[in-house]
Amino acid sequence: MLTANTVPVAYAFDAFKPLPLTPIIPTDNPQSAPKVDLGKQLFFDPRLSVTGAVSCNTCHNLMAGGDDGRAVSVGAVGKAGTRSAPTLWNVSYETVYFWDGRARSLEAAIREHLLDQTVMAMPDAASLTERFNHIAGYKREFDYVFGGPSGVSLDNTAKALAAYIRTLSTRNSPFDRYLQGDKEAISDTAEKGFQTFITAGCAACHFYVNMAGPVPGLAFKMGEGFYELFPNWLGSKYDEQYHLTDDLGRYYYDKNPQHKHLFRVPTLRNIAVTAPYFHNGSVKTLDEAVRVMARTQFQKNLTDRQVEDIVAFLKTLTGEFPPQLMPQLPPSTGQSVYK
Amino acid sequence: MLTANTVPVAYAFDAFKPLPLTPIIPTDNPQSAPKVDLGKQLFFDPRLSVTGAVSCNTCHNLMAGGDDGRAVSVGAVGKAGTRSAPTLWNVSYETVYFWDGRARSLEAAIREHLLDQTVMAMPDAASLTERFNHIAGYKREFDYVFGGPSGVSLDNTAKALAAYIRTLSTRNSPFDRYLQGDKEAISDTAEKGFQTFITAGCAACHFYVNMAGPVPGLAFKMGEGFYELFPNWLGSKYDEQYHLTDDLGRYYYDKNPQHKHLFRVPTLRNIAVTAPYFHNGSVKTLDEAVRVMARTQFQKNLTDRQVEDIVAFLKTLTGEFPPQLMPQLPPSTGQSVYK
Repeated sequence: MLTANTVPVAYAFDAFKPLPLTPIIPTDNPQSAPKVDLGKQLFFDPRLSVTGAVSCNTCHNLMAGGDDGRAVSVGAVGKAGTRSAPTLWNVSYETVYFWDGRARSLEAAIREHLLDQTVMAMPDAASLTERFNHIAGYKREFDYVFGGPSGVSLDNTAKALAAYIRTLSTRNSPFDRYLQGDKEAISDTAEKGFQTFITAGCAACHFYVNMAGPVPGLAFKMGEGFYELFPNWLGSKYDEQYHLTDDLGRYYYDKNPQHKHLFRVPTLRNIAVTAPYFHNGSVKTLDEAVRVMARTQFQKNLTDRQVEDIVAFLKTLTGEFPPQLMPQLPPSTGQSVYK
Repeated sequence: MLTANTVPVAYAFDAFKPLPLTPIIPTDNPQSAPKVDLGKQLFFDPRLSVTGAVSCNTCHNLMAGGDDGRAVSVGAVGKAGTRSAPTLWNVSYETVYFWDGRARSLEAAIREHLLDQTVMAMPDAASLTERFNHIAGYKREFDYVFGGPSGVSLDNTAKALAAYIRTLSTRNSPFDRYLQGDKEAISDTAEKGFQTFITAGCAACHFYVNMAGPVPGLAFKMGEGFYELFPNWLGSKYDEQYHLTDDLGRYYYDKNPQHKHLFRVPTLRNIAVTAPYFHNGSVKTLDEAVRVMARTQFQKNLTDRQVEDIVAFLKTLTGEFPPQLMPQLPPSTGQSVYK
């Protein structure tokens, strides 16, 4: 278990890097155009949820920064989750998934979501397979992409979705252009904020390609997570105000007492357009989120000016969102798939 | 109040016509490209709902025939409606809106939906105006389209949405191509079904451009509705099986006892991809819907072969869905808009 206090690699390579031109693709789920197309249809298809109330895009809205702007989301059967839906843009640069890192691959995270009763709430893999086998257009696509006659499955659904999601990358943020040598790409305030971001300590965790630490294949292998305590320093007024200590984080998953309040370091890319903040979505504004982090992670009280500078810097991490052409969904011809 | 029994116009013009090249636009809400663009963003933006749980597209899914495939939909605060969400494709050819025709324009229907507590559940027009005035990108667009500095309003939100929705038209269905002279565009079975559709009586209501009776400017003015009793003949087994008599239809709206069970005649365009069926979404398959209609409207029991033929014909009413490029939504920069 590596955290910012133990990871030896932070500056063994360039601390900050623009997003690469291509996503990081695992060898056990290679990309192909038909697979990505299938995954894109599935991503926008509410039939992946038991009631048809939600699609992946409901909570991970690609038109709105990749999340839903809510503190916590409400799934297919009206139950709310306990943690805030993160953006899905740039997740190919993550090594583990979920706030507690319990999913060691994007595919594993998706499989869990499909059967989670607060999310898509499908009763089991067989129900999902049966439903999609009855939608002729999907059956044809699954069989083509994965080899018929049994192409439709929970595993393959997750693979197709992951293949599409990995294509989602927001390059050319002002900060990326700044890193590539265009010193005019960010304002003087943002540049000062960048320095404060480093000297205050934020960059100890929020560094490299995704402003979230090591990426797959560089320092970390897929499935190895980069975590930090949150709060790191207990006892500030924020603990109660924002319910920061209610969630025991990774401890729920591995029962290791040292992992109470341990969370995966999240990306800061597009942070300005993905309020509210933190694992419980309790903080509504970016400036307050910066104040809370400084106090809970470093016992520092930033000045208003320092907060303003850092916020100006964080706004430069908003990249370009490539327009998505909405896929037509294969029809459930002449009948409803819902019970 | 005109119904199929009293309308004098059914065959005073071509009974069936392909969708025209352009939608029908009311004079009090002319189209413009910036207005349509704004309406498109709003259509996909869950911030139109009080909790951010749903956008227009959630229940009127343009990627899936224009509806959500559910019997009834669940709105922003988890409450279900009582009537099934209809497709929004081709609604510019309707003269009244909602199953009971209580909205005399598309704009009126949208205004009602925004404040309806089972739909978008915004508390009032002022809350909506305040929210969107705080999203800089939207304020700029509203002011540009409608004239600032007070461009954001409930009325203008409805106007922009209506402008976008009126662009949604599914031309070139096999039946439309058949009507235009391509006799090979539909199968012999479908052609037989078309004849049965007429002789059985379906075409008494389901005729003309939208397979739903008169259109704005032709026989009917905007705000005049074309209604029919459903069930027309009470007492079949279907009344109980599909709860057909529970909903008193237009009577709820105008308290006219003669209007019990009176409903607006719905379009049949894209009917094969918009299951389940009827105002309460109680019938899951198209063939059963055809059987129910024949029995409840004409006291006819169709043979399996007749049903099959009619279903084959109805499938030819599925048009082409023009691909929609997903709009990027103006960000709520650095803060969440939800309470």
